[in-house]
Amino acid sequence: MRIGILTAGGDCPGLNAVIRSVVHRAVVGHGDEVIGFEDGFKGLLDGHFRPLDLNAVSGILARGGTILGSARLERDRLREAAENCEELARRYDIDALIPIGGEGTLTAARMLSDAGMPVVGVPKTIDNDISATDRTFGFDTAVGVATEAIDRLKTTAESHQRVMVVEVMGRHAGWIALESGMAGGAHGICLPERPFEVDDLVKMVEERFARGKKFAVICVAEGAHPAEGSMPYAKGAIDQYGHERFQGIGNRLAVELETRLGKEARPVILGHVQRGGTPTAYDRVLATRFGWHAVEAVHRGDFGRMTALRGTDIAMVPLADAVTQLKRVPVARMDEAESVF
Amino acid sequence: MRIGILTAGGDCPGLNAVIRSVVHRAVVGHGDEVIGFEDGFKGLLDGHFRPLDLNAVSGILARGGTILGSARLERDRLREAAENCEELARRYDIDALIPIGGEGTLTAARMLSDAGMPVVGVPKTIDNDISATDRTFGFDTAVGVATEAIDRLKTTAESHQRVMVVEVMGRHAGWIALESGMAGGAHGICLPERPFEVDDLVKMVEERFARGKKFAVICVAEGAHPAEGSMPYAKGAIDQYGHERFQGIGNRLAVELETRLGKEARPVILGHVQRGGTPTAYDRVLATRFGWHAVEAVHRGDFGRMTALRGTDIAMVPLADAVTQLKRVPVARMDEAESVF
Amino acid sequence: MRIGILTAGGDCPGLNAVIRSVVHRAVVGHGDEVIGFEDGFKGLLDGHFRPLDLNAVSGILARGGTILGSARLERDRLREAAENCEELARRYDIDALIPIGGEGTLTAARMLSDAGMPVVGVPKTIDNDISATDRTFGFDTAVGVATEAIDRLKTTAESHQRVMVVEVMGRHAGWIALESGMAGGAHGICLPERPFEVDDLVKMVEERFARGKKFAVICVAEGAHPAEGSMPYAKGAIDQYGHERFQGIGNRLAVELETRLGKEARPVILGHVQRGGTPTAYDRVLATRFGWHAVEAVHRGDFGRMTALRGTDIAMVPLADAVTQLKRVPVARMDEAESVF
Amino acid sequence: MRIGILTAGGDCPGLNAVIRSVVHRAVVGHGDEVIGFEDGFKGLLDGHFRPLDLNAVSGILARGGTILGSARLERDRLREAAENCEELARRYDIDALIPIGGEGTLTAARMLSDAGMPVVGVPKTIDNDISATDRTFGFDTAVGVATEAIDRLKTTAESHQRVMVVEVMGRHAGWIALESGMAGGAHGICLPERPFEVDDLVKMVEERFARGKKFAVICVAEGAHPAEGSMPYAKGAIDQYGHERFQGIGNRLAVELETRLGKEARPVILGHVQRGGTPTAYDRVLATRFGWHAVEAVHRGDFGRMTALRGTDIAMVPLADAVTQLKRVPVARMDEAESVF
Repeated sequence: MRIGILTAGGDCPGLNAVIRSVVHRAVVGHGDEVIGFEDGFKGLLDGHFRPLDLNAVSGILARGGTILGSARLERDRLREAAENCEELARRYDIDALIPIGGEGTLTAARMLSDAGMPVVGVPKTIDNDISATDRTFGFDTAVGVATEAIDRLKTTAESHQRVMVVEVMGRHAGWIALESGMAGGAHGICLPERPFEVDDLVKMVEERFARGKKFAVICVAEGAHPAEGSMPYAKGAIDQYGHERFQGIGNRLAVELETRLGKEARPVILGHVQRGGTPTAYDRVLATRFGWHAVEAVHRGDFGRMTALRGTDIAMVPLADAVTQLKRVPVARMDEAESVF
Repeated sequence: MRIGILTAGGDCPGLNAVIRSVVHRAVVGHGDEVIGFEDGFKGLLDGHFRPLDLNAVSGILARGGTILGSARLERDRLREAAENCEELARRYDIDALIPIGGEGTLTAARMLSDAGMPVVGVPKTIDNDISATDRTFGFDTAVGVATEAIDRLKTTAESHQRVMVVEVMGRHAGWIALESGMAGGAHGICLPERPFEVDDLVKMVEERFARGKKFAVICVAEGAHPAEGSMPYAKGAIDQYGHERFQGIGNRLAVELETRLGKEARPVILGHVQRGGTPTAYDRVLATRFGWHAVEAVHRGDFGRMTALRGTDIAMVPLADAVTQLKRVPVARMDEAESVF
Repeated sequence: MRIGILTAGGDCPGLNAVIRSVVHRAVVGHGDEVIGFEDGFKGLLDGHFRPLDLNAVSGILARGGTILGSARLERDRLREAAENCEELARRYDIDALIPIGGEGTLTAARMLSDAGMPVVGVPKTIDNDISATDRTFGFDTAVGVATEAIDRLKTTAESHQRVMVVEVMGRHAGWIALESGMAGGAHGICLPERPFEVDDLVKMVEERFARGKKFAVICVAEGAHPAEGSMPYAKGAIDQYGHERFQGIGNRLAVELETRLGKEARPVILGHVQRGGTPTAYDRVLATRFGWHAVEAVHRGDFGRMTALRGTDIAMVPLADAVTQLKRVPVARMDEAESVF
Repeated sequence: MRIGILTAGGDCPGLNAVIRSVVHRAVVGHGDEVIGFEDGFKGLLDGHFRPLDLNAVSGILARGGTILGSARLERDRLREAAENCEELARRYDIDALIPIGGEGTLTAARMLSDAGMPVVGVPKTIDNDISATDRTFGFDTAVGVATEAIDRLKTTAESHQRVMVVEVMGRHAGWIALESGMAGGAHGICLPERPFEVDDLVKMVEERFARGKKFAVICVAEGAHPAEGSMPYAKGAIDQYGHERFQGIGNRLAVELETRLGKEARPVILGHVQRGGTPTAYDRVLATRFGWHAVEAVHRGDFGRMTALRGTDIAMVPLADAVTQLKRVPVARMDEAESVF
């Protein structure tokens, strides 16, 4: 068999581990050939690819990024791919395509699959917000990086009687904030799933100071937003011309808290460090298993599906299940986190 | 309510996170009192305990070890506890006991439960070999430590054309070897679940050298053993008086390989570093959730059970399910690992 | 003897290691008593202090922050301290004061010393910009954190053909940017010591892309500034009302580069994670040695001086030498860094 | 110019950083050509080398090991090299040779230099025992790995009332034991420089237990040895046939302590993890500077010398100074460490 593989969308620790695993399983386990398209679907459309043998994937297991490169999807070009997918498969002489990516990529994968391309998807997102899989690789690494940052900030907050506001990734789902907040022992966690009341945070900090714990760390997802009207001061930070001076919820929340508490509050925006670099052992194992099972699915002819973690097993689920609904933090998980402030 | 808590058995990253979570949930969420028995069941029998309030558990989330101490179980004294468990509950005026521990502790917990003590167990083992739960806290940290070691050893092996044999923990189940071996990209993984053929390892190394990869890393669980007769030379290392000169499978395998390959093979025995120190974010979250749900179970009167991870949920399972059978690495998982050599 | 100790100024990994070392050496080595003033000079003036014995400093060696707390200095209150320093020494019955802090603290220490207080200073700054000592503790940790961030960002930059601008600490001296830039292999390093030409950075990135290296990482100290007129576009980012929309050199430089290069450029502002948390082994050793030698100096009556690293030795240097001039990155060090782009 | 480079001796984090720096400085800074000999002096003698351009050293800065490979020296072959060094230089058309290595390599370098080869050495040892330089790269990484291990072991020791004996590298000099012991807060440190009295260790542990600190961690260099007669029991462990059953000082000391203290004492032998893998930021900077200055020395014609750290400067020192005497831990440094038990 001849299998094509590509990585698309934002960076995510573990991409190289999937690529390596696909190549190992396909080449060693089945005697297949593997080709890698460069820069995501662009490589597929423009004919940029290279053969991937054992040497090509040597030493990449622990490396961040993707040796194949990645690029944003353009809708028009994807439609172009869907319309010509038979021709594309013929052009590269591939029996299957394994696209690795997030919601956008999997939607594209589904489009190609519906149009007749033999596709097996591998889900990828540091945000952990893809339905139908218990976890995605990259998430554990992101949580680990954020937790280490919270650990570091906590000692400073404590020594200097300060409030620290840590903004972590998560535009639509708050998984990173939830788990790094729990793991780091943040005293407040704000998620996109539920508008937060600044009053509650103020009260929490004041109670802490009252019982002698003169610091607090608040972990806020970039997509979290305050309940309406609950953040009057940071709004006041919008100047007379209507320009907001503090961008991002982390910066704004720090201003609001400093104003209302009369205590130093400092924002830290973690940003891209959460999505690059060496994956954790957990993510390497999950990524490796995803790659292995994707190849097996190809050989079973189990197309139009993607790999998914279900408990301790890797299952194959319809691509449709992955992309119809975002996986958001359920209330029960928020409750668990709230009680440990 | 008044809840007693204790930690027993070997060290495991995340113990303090459970203690903290139990105290937070019980005290803040329910207005309970919590007392901690010192050095496991010994503290329960000998009356060594201390009250645990929020201050007592402040700052321990990320700390390894257990603030309550731990000690080995003696069977006789456990029987003593079981026989007097009503009296014990009365003596400390506790409405429930939450023992945190491994197979031995959970067996003891079951004994006490059968004798009438209101018990909610929390499973603990870095080996991940307790049935009825997908994972245990401590395991992820152990795998992380072992993986980092393999990462380090790999570069040396490669530069110096060497075979490295890394012995990791796992007496009866090979989970740590399996996952750190996969994550570290070990070229051979030996588990207690299946006797390994040294011939296979020799062949694998020779094939690697033949195709220009002049090094190999082999990850071996301390409980792994060679197929009968497959390790003649390390046996030869037993001297004329019948004393084995190389103790431990890691040391013995290195000798055997060096002899048969005619190449340098070095053993590294990771030992106790795998079970101490700061837990990973994953383990802190799991431990915190276990603690939270243990308290909820106490308040529901859901005794004789223990917390367990099932997919993404925390479930309560009968203590009996945990201790009747060891959770070993299934063949399917070994197959996944084998193909990525 | 009775020795007072305090920590002042911003947070810095290693403060607790100094405190622990002073207590160990004084108590065990000399039979001294040690008291710790809380929240820097405030505790000295307001009478907030506590005795520090071996138990008080147990387990703090690897912990970030300072168990004594810290607070900003107010000039007036310092003058108050200087004017009453004889009375202060008498009030607490101390034979010596060991203040641990940065430039401000050491200036205060010198003031107190000149006024007759028996003072031995310990220099502290993550910025490494105190003259008269080869290095300060905290710096190595900060460089380590920044380097790990650059390592992570590099893989993302490479996979996604992006320019990453990492802003690290260093308002007046660029040591952190210099060393983390070198260690992380940044392709451009901008220091406060020398205005940078954006043209040079643009040219460097374009040359990299031209030879197939389609990414770049630029490490910029928060105190770095562009040569006059060299950053026209980020200036353009100031809106029609004269408000600058992008604060901080990191954010501004990313805008400028993105505009001029027509390629994605992303800023990451590391912020406070650089100055908190567990110190590296290097910083723990240096901090411990500083503490030990400070106590020895006290016992020799070697006052008005501070500990300093000179080669591999700890020397005592006049406080005056530390505070008269900032230690900035010399041209020779910049040359070394430039050639490794 | 055309410069040859090689790496010899045991593995050491930072080797690749030197290679990369030499290539960058030579190629970009001077327009030189660089060739790398494979597997140390063997490649020089046997004609195994490859050109090193910017692409060849791309991405290796943070990688452990050496892309050039390394191998043990054989004295005879070295003499062969010395006798033919003019011919060798002619054969490869090189104007200078930069060998990177430890004592053996630098001795060989000196031999070649004396025989007329234009040589600039770069010292390398994780043991930090080369005279004439304040530090060597690799050492900081080794100390960091050992310190992290001690951190982890300490929590287990404390929770389980145990004595832990950690054996670290250092056959002839105890720098790693000294600094990791100080950084990890070990309660006893045993160095090759001074025979240790087991009685002192026993007394220390007993005093700790007496004051409620029921654990201890002892850090012992592999080359440390007990004062004569001070270890009777581990000697007893030699069996009736005169075979020692416990190899290595770490194992033996644990047996001795367990026997005499009647408390659990566990050995951990860190081994090769100390000398592989990603170098710390410190080591990457030092290695990069060494590489840069080696090239500068070549261009100045400053042969027969090696790079050395002196304070904050890189100096060139005669190869003779490096190899005549091992740099051992001075008494003053031991005193500092002893007082912080």
